[in-house]
Amino acid sequence: VSGAFTDRAEAAEQLIAEGRLYYSRGWMPATAGNLSVRLAGAEQPRFLVTQSGLHKGSLGPEHLVECGPGWSKVEYTSARPSAETWIHEAIYERVAWANAVFHVHTVETTLLSLLPHDGADKGVRLLRFRGLELSKALGVWTESGETCLPVLPNWADVSQIGEDVRRSVTEDSLPAFLIAGHGLTCWGKSVEDARRHVEAVEFLAACLRGAPELMGG
Amino acid sequence: VSGAFTDRAEAAEQLIAEGRLYYSRGWMPATAGNLSVRLAGAEQPRFLVTQSGLHKGSLGPEHLVECGPGWSKVEYTSARPSAETWIHEAIYERVAWANAVFHVHTVETTLLSLLPHDGADKGVRLLRFRGLELSKALGVWTESGETCLPVLPNWADVSQIGEDVRRSVTEDSLPAFLIAGHGLTCWGKSVEDARRHVEAVEFLAACLRGAPELMGG
Amino acid sequence: VSGAFTDRAEAAEQLIAEGRLYYSRGWMPATAGNLSVRLAGAEQPRFLVTQSGLHKGSLGPEHLVECGPGWSKVEYTSARPSAETWIHEAIYERVAWANAVFHVHTVETTLLSLLPHDGADKGVRLLRFRGLELSKALGVWTESGETCLPVLPNWADVSQIGEDVRRSVTEDSLPAFLIAGHGLTCWGKSVEDARRHVEAVEFLAACLRGAPELMGG
Amino acid sequence: VSGAFTDRAEAAEQLIAEGRLYYSRGWMPATAGNLSVRLAGAEQPRFLVTQSGLHKGSLGPEHLVECGPGWSKVEYTSARPSAETWIHEAIYERVAWANAVFHVHTVETTLLSLLPHDGADKGVRLLRFRGLELSKALGVWTESGETCLPVLPNWADVSQIGEDVRRSVTEDSLPAFLIAGHGLTCWGKSVEDARRHVEAVEFLAACLRGAPELMGG
Repeated sequence: VSGAFTDRAEAAEQLIAEGRLYYSRGWMPATAGNLSVRLAGAEQPRFLVTQSGLHKGSLGPEHLVECGPGWSKVEYTSARPSAETWIHEAIYERVAWANAVFHVHTVETTLLSLLPHDGADKGVRLLRFRGLELSKALGVWTESGETCLPVLPNWADVSQIGEDVRRSVTEDSLPAFLIAGHGLTCWGKSVEDARRHVEAVEFLAACLRGAPELMGG
Repeated sequence: VSGAFTDRAEAAEQLIAEGRLYYSRGWMPATAGNLSVRLAGAEQPRFLVTQSGLHKGSLGPEHLVECGPGWSKVEYTSARPSAETWIHEAIYERVAWANAVFHVHTVETTLLSLLPHDGADKGVRLLRFRGLELSKALGVWTESGETCLPVLPNWADVSQIGEDVRRSVTEDSLPAFLIAGHGLTCWGKSVEDARRHVEAVEFLAACLRGAPELMGG
Repeated sequence: VSGAFTDRAEAAEQLIAEGRLYYSRGWMPATAGNLSVRLAGAEQPRFLVTQSGLHKGSLGPEHLVECGPGWSKVEYTSARPSAETWIHEAIYERVAWANAVFHVHTVETTLLSLLPHDGADKGVRLLRFRGLELSKALGVWTESGETCLPVLPNWADVSQIGEDVRRSVTEDSLPAFLIAGHGLTCWGKSVEDARRHVEAVEFLAACLRGAPELMGG
Repeated sequence: VSGAFTDRAEAAEQLIAEGRLYYSRGWMPATAGNLSVRLAGAEQPRFLVTQSGLHKGSLGPEHLVECGPGWSKVEYTSARPSAETWIHEAIYERVAWANAVFHVHTVETTLLSLLPHDGADKGVRLLRFRGLELSKALGVWTESGETCLPVLPNWADVSQIGEDVRRSVTEDSLPAFLIAGHGLTCWGKSVEDARRHVEAVEFLAACLRGAPELMGG
């Protein structure tokens, strides 16, 4: 099981495999989404992240970019990191145990993120539901249990989404949030752990589409 | 066609293949579900079961644990059997002809298990439906036929689910039940037979979602 | 492109491949459905058909049975043809150009076959719809076009379904019908042709589930 | 990344791979749809297009036909181009940067194309929606953004569809349109680019089925 990666080649290999998996499931259609893992050894978060605008089903090592503080001011000559790197950076900053961050676009989680709410404010909402055993995979469940999944607003300026993440995510947060109309982001202590969270939220979202009565306070 | 397994390596191989199949179909998302087969030669049920908390798409022989009476009191050093082993044990005890028990989490069967009912008691309910030829695959069908699929309550203490299984399952039961919000459990006289029951209930559940008028007395 | 098969080994190979394909798509779940191709050279229809009660994803040549007139009275020692062979035989009898008959169980076509109708009689119904370009793949379409897909009653005694087929299918029929609660049957002048019809009806059924307003006179 | 193809063999290889991909996803069922790429070096558009009436999952180089102005009057001896070549030709004529045109039949885009509208005229409609980040993959998105996807009428005489394309598509158009009851057509500056547009519209269509409130002015 991987933690932060000391070997860049191995990190790349795992991101490539993960991209292939999610693409094959239709969870990274078009060139949507981005994937990263933390690189070991730095005080400030450094991570390897997928390049902007590429099909995620056929990534090569050359399609991954190393980023850290100040990445947005670097003049990249060829491979440019995704603008959504703001989101990845914020999670690595706030959650010391997060070693992998996966942002995917699935139909089910996009639909879940769009459920009507009071449109007035652009604050973080909590989507509450109960009664689904698979919530356990996110680290929460009791017999009378309730899960609270955050839904962040979708700002055109992605750095603002990063700010929202900084404000709302802590070490103890559920390792997942939605962005309205903009898919799912999960993290984990390893690649396997983050994938588990992605699969869990996708399953829960599909169940909630079929059983909306599980939602609400 | 397999019965109880005399060869542990072959038993492991079949469980590994079964895990890969269900995971690839999205029926064991995250690390949900568990699979077991009966080991031959013991008076008391002994069986090989998947370890707790692992992705089911990439199991190895080292991820399977041998269990029998008193398994819950054993101090496992590494691989710990799933807490849901209570369910497997109860089925092997009650159904002498059961040589494989598969517990999966599918969206369709989870939704079927959540259909509203009188929430007051936590007893076993019967979900009745008719008109679907594929019920035959579960061993029941007549022209005017009706299928009755049990739905068990989902206790946080899994040993209580085991007790419910002991109370409600007999040799003549339909080889399948749902647990509310918690997927599908099937058994069979062989791996192939149990898989047939899993596939049949999944298909029936998908049909019932589209044609709820087939349900009810 | 195959017509009637002169080479039994090649016929078997194609049925095996077809079974693998449909099983992988979830169109022959559990052990549902059966597949056949016509064997060349006989005046009376002779055909190779899948054996009863087997998983269709892993057929071997030994799981195929040769049938012809009087097949139901033969004392088969090992491989027994499916009871649904009545349906295959009736189609080969009525449609001289049919060289392949595929009977599958898909969720979409099962749901389509279950649409409410006047339950009083057990006659053949016609399911009418219009507006879908893919109807062309069944050999029917005009700008104002309408497709009429027969739905046969599902008799417990399959030989009665065979009788209904004899009464309602002709050389000029749409090469497909549904049986209520019991999936889809298609035929074609070759394996490829019959597969085309299966795929077309599956697609049309999925569209009709989403757009029921296309149905009706 | 491919532009117009100078090497016919490479062009063929890419079309074959693309057909296999879409067929495996159920986006070219039966023998529906057709695929083309532009051939380099000609003033008038010349392109390689899939032959009429073939399964798209197992194309060979011999199933591709070279077409250009006047293609509809050529007496093809064996491989005949699809009648829908009218649509491909019109796009290559109108959009100089289009080097690949893909016409597929998916359930989601067919359903989207069928949404009720004023049935009186047969003009091009615009299907408006907003709030889905993946619209970006089509080259349009703002925070308050709206996407307008054209829906063309489905004429039995395909050359009339070609005329509608000539009238409504420009260099600046969204690189995608629907034909009522008749699937999705996308183009791109390369095979990868056109595939990105196909995947994007498919995803958007699936989201819109689940969240129809995103549509409308």
